Amino acid sequence: MRNRFVSFGEIMGRLSPPNNERIVQANSFNINYGGAEANTSVMLSNLGIETCFFTAVPNNLVGEAAVNYLNRYKINTKNIVKSGERLGLYYLECGNSIRSSRVIYDRKNSAVTECEVEKYDFESIFEGAEWFHFTGITAALGKNCVKVLKKAIEVAKSKGIKISIDLNYRKQLWSYDEFKRVVMPLLKDVDLCIGWIDLNQTGDFKMLNAAKDNLDDEYFKSVFSKMCNQFNIKYIATTLRETFSSSENALTGIIYKDGKIVKSKRYNFGIIDRVGAGDAFAAGLIYKLLEDDNIKDTVEFATAASAIKHTILGDSNIVSKDEIMDLIGNSSVGEVKR
Amino acid sequence: MRNRFVSFGEIMGRLSPPNNERIVQANSFNINYGGAEANTSVMLSNLGIETCFFTAVPNNLVGEAAVNYLNRYKINTKNIVKSGERLGLYYLECGNSIRSSRVIYDRKNSAVTECEVEKYDFESIFEGAEWFHFTGITAALGKNCVKVLKKAIEVAKSKGIKISIDLNYRKQLWSYDEFKRVVMPLLKDVDLCIGWIDLNQTGDFKMLNAAKDNLDDEYFKSVFSKMCNQFNIKYIATTLRETFSSSENALTGIIYKDGKIVKSKRYNFGIIDRVGAGDAFAAGLIYKLLEDDNIKDTVEFATAASAIKHTILGDSNIVSKDEIMDLIGNSSVGEVKR
Amino acid sequence: MRNRFVSFGEIMGRLSPPNNERIVQANSFNINYGGAEANTSVMLSNLGIETCFFTAVPNNLVGEAAVNYLNRYKINTKNIVKSGERLGLYYLECGNSIRSSRVIYDRKNSAVTECEVEKYDFESIFEGAEWFHFTGITAALGKNCVKVLKKAIEVAKSKGIKISIDLNYRKQLWSYDEFKRVVMPLLKDVDLCIGWIDLNQTGDFKMLNAAKDNLDDEYFKSVFSKMCNQFNIKYIATTLRETFSSSENALTGIIYKDGKIVKSKRYNFGIIDRVGAGDAFAAGLIYKLLEDDNIKDTVEFATAASAIKHTILGDSNIVSKDEIMDLIGNSSVGEVKR
Amino acid sequence: MRNRFVSFGEIMGRLSPPNNERIVQANSFNINYGGAEANTSVMLSNLGIETCFFTAVPNNLVGEAAVNYLNRYKINTKNIVKSGERLGLYYLECGNSIRSSRVIYDRKNSAVTECEVEKYDFESIFEGAEWFHFTGITAALGKNCVKVLKKAIEVAKSKGIKISIDLNYRKQLWSYDEFKRVVMPLLKDVDLCIGWIDLNQTGDFKMLNAAKDNLDDEYFKSVFSKMCNQFNIKYIATTLRETFSSSENALTGIIYKDGKIVKSKRYNFGIIDRVGAGDAFAAGLIYKLLEDDNIKDTVEFATAASAIKHTILGDSNIVSKDEIMDLIGNSSVGEVKR
Amino acid sequence: MRNRFVSFGEIMGRLSPPNNERIVQANSFNINYGGAEANTSVMLSNLGIETCFFTAVPNNLVGEAAVNYLNRYKINTKNIVKSGERLGLYYLECGNSIRSSRVIYDRKNSAVTECEVEKYDFESIFEGAEWFHFTGITAALGKNCVKVLKKAIEVAKSKGIKISIDLNYRKQLWSYDEFKRVVMPLLKDVDLCIGWIDLNQTGDFKMLNAAKDNLDDEYFKSVFSKMCNQFNIKYIATTLRETFSSSENALTGIIYKDGKIVKSKRYNFGIIDRVGAGDAFAAGLIYKLLEDDNIKDTVEFATAASAIKHTILGDSNIVSKDEIMDLIGNSSVGEVKR
Amino acid sequence: MRNRFVSFGEIMGRLSPPNNERIVQANSFNINYGGAEANTSVMLSNLGIETCFFTAVPNNLVGEAAVNYLNRYKINTKNIVKSGERLGLYYLECGNSIRSSRVIYDRKNSAVTECEVEKYDFESIFEGAEWFHFTGITAALGKNCVKVLKKAIEVAKSKGIKISIDLNYRKQLWSYDEFKRVVMPLLKDVDLCIGWIDLNQTGDFKMLNAAKDNLDDEYFKSVFSKMCNQFNIKYIATTLRETFSSSENALTGIIYKDGKIVKSKRYNFGIIDRVGAGDAFAAGLIYKLLEDDNIKDTVEFATAASAIKHTILGDSNIVSKDEIMDLIGNSSVGEVKR
Repeated sequence: MRNRFVSFGEIMGRLSPPNNERIVQANSFNINYGGAEANTSVMLSNLGIETCFFTAVPNNLVGEAAVNYLNRYKINTKNIVKSGERLGLYYLECGNSIRSSRVIYDRKNSAVTECEVEKYDFESIFEGAEWFHFTGITAALGKNCVKVLKKAIEVAKSKGIKISIDLNYRKQLWSYDEFKRVVMPLLKDVDLCIGWIDLNQTGDFKMLNAAKDNLDDEYFKSVFSKMCNQFNIKYIATTLRETFSSSENALTGIIYKDGKIVKSKRYNFGIIDRVGAGDAFAAGLIYKLLEDDNIKDTVEFATAASAIKHTILGDSNIVSKDEIMDLIGNSSVGEVKR
Repeated sequence: MRNRFVSFGEIMGRLSPPNNERIVQANSFNINYGGAEANTSVMLSNLGIETCFFTAVPNNLVGEAAVNYLNRYKINTKNIVKSGERLGLYYLECGNSIRSSRVIYDRKNSAVTECEVEKYDFESIFEGAEWFHFTGITAALGKNCVKVLKKAIEVAKSKGIKISIDLNYRKQLWSYDEFKRVVMPLLKDVDLCIGWIDLNQTGDFKMLNAAKDNLDDEYFKSVFSKMCNQFNIKYIATTLRETFSSSENALTGIIYKDGKIVKSKRYNFGIIDRVGAGDAFAAGLIYKLLEDDNIKDTVEFATAASAIKHTILGDSNIVSKDEIMDLIGNSSVGEVKR
Repeated sequence: MRNRFVSFGEIMGRLSPPNNERIVQANSFNINYGGAEANTSVMLSNLGIETCFFTAVPNNLVGEAAVNYLNRYKINTKNIVKSGERLGLYYLECGNSIRSSRVIYDRKNSAVTECEVEKYDFESIFEGAEWFHFTGITAALGKNCVKVLKKAIEVAKSKGIKISIDLNYRKQLWSYDEFKRVVMPLLKDVDLCIGWIDLNQTGDFKMLNAAKDNLDDEYFKSVFSKMCNQFNIKYIATTLRETFSSSENALTGIIYKDGKIVKSKRYNFGIIDRVGAGDAFAAGLIYKLLEDDNIKDTVEFATAASAIKHTILGDSNIVSKDEIMDLIGNSSVGEVKR
Repeated sequence: MRNRFVSFGEIMGRLSPPNNERIVQANSFNINYGGAEANTSVMLSNLGIETCFFTAVPNNLVGEAAVNYLNRYKINTKNIVKSGERLGLYYLECGNSIRSSRVIYDRKNSAVTECEVEKYDFESIFEGAEWFHFTGITAALGKNCVKVLKKAIEVAKSKGIKISIDLNYRKQLWSYDEFKRVVMPLLKDVDLCIGWIDLNQTGDFKMLNAAKDNLDDEYFKSVFSKMCNQFNIKYIATTLRETFSSSENALTGIIYKDGKIVKSKRYNFGIIDRVGAGDAFAAGLIYKLLEDDNIKDTVEFATAASAIKHTILGDSNIVSKDEIMDLIGNSSVGEVKR
Repeated sequence: MRNRFVSFGEIMGRLSPPNNERIVQANSFNINYGGAEANTSVMLSNLGIETCFFTAVPNNLVGEAAVNYLNRYKINTKNIVKSGERLGLYYLECGNSIRSSRVIYDRKNSAVTECEVEKYDFESIFEGAEWFHFTGITAALGKNCVKVLKKAIEVAKSKGIKISIDLNYRKQLWSYDEFKRVVMPLLKDVDLCIGWIDLNQTGDFKMLNAAKDNLDDEYFKSVFSKMCNQFNIKYIATTLRETFSSSENALTGIIYKDGKIVKSKRYNFGIIDRVGAGDAFAAGLIYKLLEDDNIKDTVEFATAASAIKHTILGDSNIVSKDEIMDLIGNSSVGEVKR
Repeated sequence: MRNRFVSFGEIMGRLSPPNNERIVQANSFNINYGGAEANTSVMLSNLGIETCFFTAVPNNLVGEAAVNYLNRYKINTKNIVKSGERLGLYYLECGNSIRSSRVIYDRKNSAVTECEVEKYDFESIFEGAEWFHFTGITAALGKNCVKVLKKAIEVAKSKGIKISIDLNYRKQLWSYDEFKRVVMPLLKDVDLCIGWIDLNQTGDFKMLNAAKDNLDDEYFKSVFSKMCNQFNIKYIATTLRETFSSSENALTGIIYKDGKIVKSKRYNFGIIDRVGAGDAFAAGLIYKLLEDDNIKDTVEFATAASAIKHTILGDSNIVSKDEIMDLIGNSSVGEVKR
């Protein structure tokens, strides 16, 4: 059994009140399992890519439930280590219309943050691999996780495996300065960088907004070419999100390679569950780049995958390739398929 | 007890995941019971028309549940035959926004398809009837069903009962050629035809779209007058649907009689459950034509009924006449009635 | 323990079918507890104001459940009298899109309507109070309730406590003539009147609609100044609602004081639960007027509070001050807070 | 359409917390519809007896839901009058093991209590009837209901229709003295009396307990023969219940006719829902006595029907004749039928 | 990847009403996936045995859901063929106390019954296998399934793989004569036979009952030794079930080898879900016989596994080895593990 | 506002799968809030005792939900500190019959364990107090909690407030040696000790079982008198539990004072939710000892309260005094109260 796609990160339990309730109103929480890299892995596995996701989970019923969730979608979980004391959790209160969604992390001291790099079997993990993916969130989880990332990058590099990062700066997890200090050194071996940061920025991180801030293609071309030069990155891609409300957004994808910027169609859509849309974009990019080098097809596929994620409950983008292609082709979206 | 309105078709169990879940995510399915003619029957019965729906269901708890569903809405179910082995089923995965709904039929070998025409008591069924309705779906269910339809049409005709068909071509059930071969001979006794087909069409059936294909009243007048001439049909009616997404559509109704085309108001609405909207349109037409011959009132009532169906969960249009009339009059739509 | 804010009214059980079901389809009802003044009290208590809500509930498990609901949000319920036979109820069928919501009252002979004024301990209730609030709905509940209102107003007046009324005429409860006969005499001691009525109106009450009826600031200035003069009212405020459908509305707030009209921003939003939006507006006004006399800030806060209520399930506006201020500042509405 | 079995009484909404919750813990209530005579009617209708249940319900969505519930089980509801303001309700908190179930009535001023005898069409109701049944509960609902009962008894008597009463004294509804005053005069036309009362009893009503109070066949023979003589009753029947806990009971049936006492088998069973078990016993008696005069078969059938009711959720005994006969024959109880 | 344990059979969707509802009362069905061999496979996989279950499912969302269910419990599903039109279904109405559970099969024409033997890749399936298991149910599913069984037995035999059958005669599926005609020829290659039949029996199959029919060890020894001789079987095992009600049973296991009978402890237990208890017994036998030849340990483990299955919701026995061993050791059963 | 009863400990979120599901099967978790001292506080508050529970919870929506839970049952929560990062959690998988319940703690680094003693306002907390209660669980939560306990005991002692401890040794939290080292010094100021330990025990803690280990009154008298002498304790009480299965237990209470042992009635009951039964016993003891010194009444009340807790969902014993007294009097247990 080979693992064409490999990823490392945390899988958390997600607790969210049902039916638009607030946390303080809820008598029950829906539980599902996810995390940035896990979500990307589920979508790729669903699309037929042999996928290995590795992490650590506690050796109890909750850890087993998380692993079973990944098994369900055919991910190779054999390299998940059972150790540590707790599964990381997060609470998600889904907003709607003019009320925002809230995320409360309860992930400190989770199994993956306490698992030492020596416990993972990198030979088995990377057997037959073509792509390794990670995110800046995992880099924020402390020394053990950073060591694993460094080792994984080293192994991947030595085997000629492509590497991608989704920057995913989260200010609840660390400061922007720490982020730069830890993540920037990891960029030098990356082929695909998802997200972009202003490297000249001083002071706090400010999330730029293409629409509001009136960013045009030239802006992206100039920033991205600088990034590529500095870090030896081949592709940079990102989504440009327009947030009208918690229930309606629009999304355009953008990709950069060799001095060229390509944009996708723009999708305007309602939102059932926004979490994991960025991870779906990553999975879409990787899926197409595993096929060939066509950046136009790549950004169209990734953006459609990310857009359709907003209509799916849970962190994972449970969709078929046909559904993504239908959306790109716009053929009969909204018709009942019967 | 008389049966003012009579219909024949299949009643199926409908299994649909709750809360926007996909089928592969679901731990439970909502169950309700429906089918094209059954849905039309429920709405008419709810509006106070004495209604007889006949079919066959298996003699088990599932068949009983389906019959009880019809009883609940006061339909006369005395002529439903208990025979056969299974109740037809279909899975409905509700889409939203840019994700389409999916229907998976599991209706082969159902009780009604295996029940022979001799088992039904046509005398009892048509006692006091004024209207008989069926759809092209039922004609697709095989020889037994076609025999029943032919017999029912023959009895209805002999008693001067008005007859309507909703063409409802479904490509999952049969080819367009078979459809034409079986359904066209049934049209000659029909008073009201719902839906229209290009009778000169060659090759595959193509669903025309008034909005996209820029069809105007003249187009409809010319096509409908040809159909009426060819088949001796008195009324032709249809809805023109604009599909913006799985969550938002618009609908306009159109009716033709004696060379005249009348259109209804156009309704733009959100969607809770689209299934059965066409059946509600049929019921609205029949309800008004049972009253009198005013085609303007008829198409307004039928279109409003169909529009409001999209806000009702389940296959059946559980609404009162007042609610339909309020929508037509636009009086305080969206106000809380208190 | 002081009670900075005091209110009297009915707390009812609210029975509403889950998941967009109609009452005739439902196998279960969600239950929560509310009423105009109770809803206002919950929001104020949630914002940190010491709040006393007094009423009567039956001495049984249902009455206890209603009181516990208020306790949960830290309201002082010590002055709620246990007497009478039943808790008032109402059924709420939530509409969506082009289908309207329906309210069916089942509140006659409820505990609060049968509880005599002598049973309440006004000394304890008004200890340390700064504001007393009631609505026209409570005045419609019969002689006992009117006596309590009169006594409460008298006590409040004697202690220099500010008084507000939300007019809330409900035609299911009484005629417009009765409303005027009972409520107008209560206005003379009121500082803040929410809602306005055409005092010269003859015949039936007609709900004016600012948008449809093309009402401008001059109209409001003239009507409100007349009201203030006639009744010695200091502030008049109201929301102007635009109803596009059961699922989408817009809201603008307006306040009048000393010959000046101030309007809030206009909010356009989707609707999860509209009930209690007016009560949230009242709570917002009172919250800010307890702070100071800035009518611009007051109407902005109250309108944002009312708008966000539409996104919250249940009668009560369970929101924090931060969420309201974020909405006013429009900072990152619709972003996931993580 | 004939009505072989006729009954009059109240149909109420029953609100009960799901999953063993207490009322003060519940966020939702299961809703179903029932009442003593309605429950008896549902079981008889399910067994194939043409059944007419008449009552009054309010002309709103809640009244419609109650009627639809009866329709579902094929009861003839054409003679239900739409009038009045509210549907009676009751709250049921299900106990378990050593915690008792609680019933809170909220049925005062319900539609049926306010509906005058003139509104019912007794000719239509009793068309083709063979049996009329009522209970002491309905007699407790006030003057209007007593007038209806008297009229119904008079009509039934005049047509030679058999009459049964289930005494069902409920101390939450009236005193024992009132009960005797109202119900005793109704007994003189009754053929079957379910339950027995010590007519010589002084002071408060005391529910006798055959097991605890050591009552033997001789006791019943002597009491029942006195009752038959005094009131000209033909059959007296009752269940003897042994209450071990809220979750486990045992039941034996007893019937008396012409000086003979016959007892049924004794059933020991677990309890899902005890409400309506007495009504199932009544239905079982009537079902068999409509067939013939075999009191042994009658008491066996009725007792088995009552026992199995405890395993069915809701007020109504939704069982088939086969299931009752299987239980009597003890054939493979507890086996999976596959 | 090797497949230590291999099994073939049908995986069906199981539709069962929640919360003790009857099918005719249900608004929803819980859905899970199972079948005799699939259930045995899930338990073995959960215990850490590399398991391959092969079958055919339709190439649609329902088929995918069934496969995902197996993946979740780490079963190798790579050899499941996607073909055919429908997933077999069955309805399960759970009984309780004196009401029996009911199973309604709706499995005709399912994918696995229509899939031809050539479509399966027996080389891949049996790679590294040590045990092959099937049941008499699968033999009842028609010619295609019998061909697959014969081929699988042939391959297994040729590789020295142990073979087991669970006889599982189901009278809803076929007659006892057909059963004997088809299944008896399959027995000659079997090492372990679960269940026993009276081979001399004439007429209809009669399920013997050890308790009622007073069967002692000598009876079993004599019958089992005859079977072993006739069919060259090595082990015969069965459970002896005592059925007190739908909610309480007792179970003793018995195993025979080389003229010796060994019985397990007897377990008395309450029942949450009885379906799959026999499949758990089979899995327990196989699990221990894969370890060694100790028939005492084997029958103890299998019987405890089967007993504990009755406390688990769904067809599958989701338990750990520790839980089974705890039950055998009786250590602290019923204590809260904290 | 006085606080007659004061307690300190942790309030945790409890996540438990609904409907007998296992954690690995669950799609949702029921959430409620509890902890040993919090549970005791809720019962006492429900019985009308003015109760102050103090602890620390994080300043987020989850912490607010926990506090609101306590408010709901009228506990004074004003002295709960908002600090720290997370609310402690535990997972509860409810067993049934022969399957045990499982508790998985996820409570490390919770708010209360990190909150320093200086943050609590002991003056306000103990205003008017008569009783202070804590458990050995809280002593296991680390240095901060032990400091708070010591300070609280010191303040209580100085004010003549009675003190009780529930020993509650939990081996998942600490070793028996640590337990002795920390808890024994706290015993010297205790008036009531719930639970008993063999102080001469060597090696691991062994939970004694009165029934299995054949412990008689003399045993208890001798052990308890030694404990009282050593630690200056006035009362020792404990429940003697007989565990037949996860669904059925029996309970007898025992209390010791001044050389006298008194035992309660023995209750045999089914189990809905066992968690918190010990905390209910503690609350029952305290409730009666606050009244007077009658140890017979005290142990009867406490044991009945603990027994009935097993029939209530959630950690808290939501019962009325009447229900407890009814159970003691055995009056009509299991009857429907109507």
